[in-house]
Amino acid sequence: MSVQPALGEIAARFGLRLVGGSAEQPISGVATLVAADASQIGFLANPRYRAQLAATRAAAVILREPDAADCPRPCLVAADPYVAFAHVATLFEPVATAPAGIHPSAIIAADAHVDTSASIGPLCVIEAGARIEAGATLGPHCSVGPRCVVGAQSRLVARVTLVQDVRLGRRVLIHPGAVLGADGFGLAFEGDHWIKVPQLGGVVIGDDCEIGANTTIDRGALGDTVLEEDVRLDNQIQIAHNVRIGAHSALAGCAAVAGSASIGRYCLIGGGAGILGHLNVADRVTVTAMSLVTHSIREPGEYSSGTPIQPNRQWRRNAARFRHLDEIARRLGVGAKDRTE
Amino acid sequence: MSVQPALGEIAARFGLRLVGGSAEQPISGVATLVAADASQIGFLANPRYRAQLAATRAAAVILREPDAADCPRPCLVAADPYVAFAHVATLFEPVATAPAGIHPSAIIAADAHVDTSASIGPLCVIEAGARIEAGATLGPHCSVGPRCVVGAQSRLVARVTLVQDVRLGRRVLIHPGAVLGADGFGLAFEGDHWIKVPQLGGVVIGDDCEIGANTTIDRGALGDTVLEEDVRLDNQIQIAHNVRIGAHSALAGCAAVAGSASIGRYCLIGGGAGILGHLNVADRVTVTAMSLVTHSIREPGEYSSGTPIQPNRQWRRNAARFRHLDEIARRLGVGAKDRTE
Amino acid sequence: MSVQPALGEIAARFGLRLVGGSAEQPISGVATLVAADASQIGFLANPRYRAQLAATRAAAVILREPDAADCPRPCLVAADPYVAFAHVATLFEPVATAPAGIHPSAIIAADAHVDTSASIGPLCVIEAGARIEAGATLGPHCSVGPRCVVGAQSRLVARVTLVQDVRLGRRVLIHPGAVLGADGFGLAFEGDHWIKVPQLGGVVIGDDCEIGANTTIDRGALGDTVLEEDVRLDNQIQIAHNVRIGAHSALAGCAAVAGSASIGRYCLIGGGAGILGHLNVADRVTVTAMSLVTHSIREPGEYSSGTPIQPNRQWRRNAARFRHLDEIARRLGVGAKDRTE
Repeated sequence: MSVQPALGEIAARFGLRLVGGSAEQPISGVATLVAADASQIGFLANPRYRAQLAATRAAAVILREPDAADCPRPCLVAADPYVAFAHVATLFEPVATAPAGIHPSAIIAADAHVDTSASIGPLCVIEAGARIEAGATLGPHCSVGPRCVVGAQSRLVARVTLVQDVRLGRRVLIHPGAVLGADGFGLAFEGDHWIKVPQLGGVVIGDDCEIGANTTIDRGALGDTVLEEDVRLDNQIQIAHNVRIGAHSALAGCAAVAGSASIGRYCLIGGGAGILGHLNVADRVTVTAMSLVTHSIREPGEYSSGTPIQPNRQWRRNAARFRHLDEIARRLGVGAKDRTE
Repeated sequence: MSVQPALGEIAARFGLRLVGGSAEQPISGVATLVAADASQIGFLANPRYRAQLAATRAAAVILREPDAADCPRPCLVAADPYVAFAHVATLFEPVATAPAGIHPSAIIAADAHVDTSASIGPLCVIEAGARIEAGATLGPHCSVGPRCVVGAQSRLVARVTLVQDVRLGRRVLIHPGAVLGADGFGLAFEGDHWIKVPQLGGVVIGDDCEIGANTTIDRGALGDTVLEEDVRLDNQIQIAHNVRIGAHSALAGCAAVAGSASIGRYCLIGGGAGILGHLNVADRVTVTAMSLVTHSIREPGEYSSGTPIQPNRQWRRNAARFRHLDEIARRLGVGAKDRTE
Repeated sequence: MSVQPALGEIAARFGLRLVGGSAEQPISGVATLVAADASQIGFLANPRYRAQLAATRAAAVILREPDAADCPRPCLVAADPYVAFAHVATLFEPVATAPAGIHPSAIIAADAHVDTSASIGPLCVIEAGARIEAGATLGPHCSVGPRCVVGAQSRLVARVTLVQDVRLGRRVLIHPGAVLGADGFGLAFEGDHWIKVPQLGGVVIGDDCEIGANTTIDRGALGDTVLEEDVRLDNQIQIAHNVRIGAHSALAGCAAVAGSASIGRYCLIGGGAGILGHLNVADRVTVTAMSLVTHSIREPGEYSSGTPIQPNRQWRRNAARFRHLDEIARRLGVGAKDRTE
């Protein structure tokens, strides 16, 4: 945005109530409360940072109504300041300017289809039967394998590998190092060695999904691995073959979902959490970080496993006793029915 | 396979007993019980899916003898239906058709050796002293560093990096994003800063190993990091320097093995499990998902750590008490000997 | 090193006391106690390996004074044998010999700056406004995005992706598959779907940092994600947006740090450990493997969570009782104050 928008224009555009300040104030960008200068908009969404309000020099602060009284600077009052900030920040986001067309170093199979409005970056490889649809962008070093589809307006930032039979919807964003469509981990044990179970399915990614750096999503063994629309995966997530993830679910970094598990809609899976294979997780389930889901979850709500962190010396004493927890419970006659589990 | 094999031929070829149906029925493929149409073979291996048997329309179902009575369709009776299915499915697996030869965009060092029957894909880089043996296949964007060997019939699917001194056996399959032969994490603390410990070893991968997407296997510090034959690694596994993994062991996604640990033969390591450095794990040990192995394991068997998942409100109450487990045990006089641990 | 250095020269160069043996003995390399031949130097740093001393055939052994008496071979006595070994081993490390200049297959933007002493490997892509400084080395398949800086003498081993606005200090070493500068996982929930929060910051990596294979470091949302000098990251680590890691801290494989967390100086974070977002961890904190840090840590020391590994049958009995730990504690009146947590 070459011209700086005025504070009043921003308020009007996003339906925010401007309290104090001049509607004509030109705005140069967004910043944190601490870093914002007098031409930048800051925001207060996480109460952890409320103490930073007093000293901010921001041109205006996006915040909730009740915080306005504590703000020494003009306010942009929002029902959800984080959502409002996300909208305002888009005004200052540099627009990716990849030109339409195919970089001369890219290697495109004769029978691949690349829309004329798509942008194919340097050193990309597009293989037989692949389709790159209107307005899609591939950064450097991407590889789109046989029969893959990159939907309209989707973007592979750089070095993304779609192995084969991967179909992306529209506006899908994939970060570098992600691998979609590799073989699932299908093995059968025959006497004294493993044999590979052929992996014959694909991967289907719904519209508006985002997939983080170095995340892996395996192709189905039979049938597809599926992400419904608006699923958000952070970095280094592992999605095994034939997993299905419902619309609008979000998984934080390093989470892993084993084969054929099914996760509902609007779920939140914490960082490093694991979900075992063939389980079902209901809609609107939250799993906290590094918890392990070992059975299907039928009810919405928040679920956890693990123990609290402690100084190691104390932890060692307590952890050593974990080995005797059954004996302790039996002594006390607590939870007797668990003995059959 | 351009011609559809007959059901009876399939039974004969893999030693399965055909019960019901016509031996002449042409078979077009394999599918799940739910998805199979009347020309496809389904299978029942995991008892979770037995209820799907009643409604299947499959041309035939691979199953165990005792399940045959419940199957409304012809049966292919197998001692191990999953193994039988793996064999049958290979009939319908598209054969990779990479042509022998070197893609003109690949960059091959003058003193690298590429067998004339090998296939080197677009934009590969093969460096000094590397060897690509007969029938090996490298997909796009692979990099084979100095003194690496890709054994006969091995396949690097795409964007695999062998950094240096990595020797692959025969029929090794490596999925995209894997990095073999990067430096191990060797550091020595000198007063107030780290110094790097030179990493001088290599990586040796036995015949018939499979290595998943974005998995990393570091080179040895001194001597090699070793996978014996038929080791199977899923995606995003971390194998540190000088680890040794015995033949026929399998590690699920996101498992990690720290430096100089040694894992036996026929082990099964669950997803996200960790094994600390310098430990020994005996043959035929199973470690369940997300468990942490903190001492050597001498006996075969199954091992676990962690706590069960619960609704967060209940979990918080219990977890808070974990800090008092030592006191609880002392009150009851349980496990007194642990106090010296 | 084409000429083999003499044992006495090595002792003198690194300030080690030679006990026994001939100062003139030519040394061909370094090796483990078990593998060393009569021209190689071995070392004993980890007491686990003391039993290997008796049978070693090494030309000399680097060890602590008290171990010298048990060593049948000449000794190089060191205050810290691992540090001494690290120094000695550098004598035998092959020097990377990448020639200065740009490989003809690399693709360099017109306004990128590449120092004439830098080495740019095959199939690298360097985009608009990037700078590659003196003596920096990029191996094959690296991608350096807009406005990134690769500092003097830094090395991207192979297939490293710097997405944009990543500034590396001097002598930074990055292993293959690492992705720096991808968007952080910033999402705001608007009614019934996610909206992306623009990620506008960069990544700053201090001098002498090392970053492992397939590790990911996201750009800041606002402001930068920062590693101070001499931070050491192993493989497959996830560093989220706006994390700050203090100088001389080291993180082992598969550790993960969530957004806006701040880790102090001289910290040691174990493999697979997790640190939740917005927390502060003091200087000189050690977190053991696979522990989860759920609150800020104010005091130096060692911290842990989790339960000990056990045979599965025993573990299941104990783990089932974890669900009753609160009831057990209440029965005994232990830790009553925790009930309000």
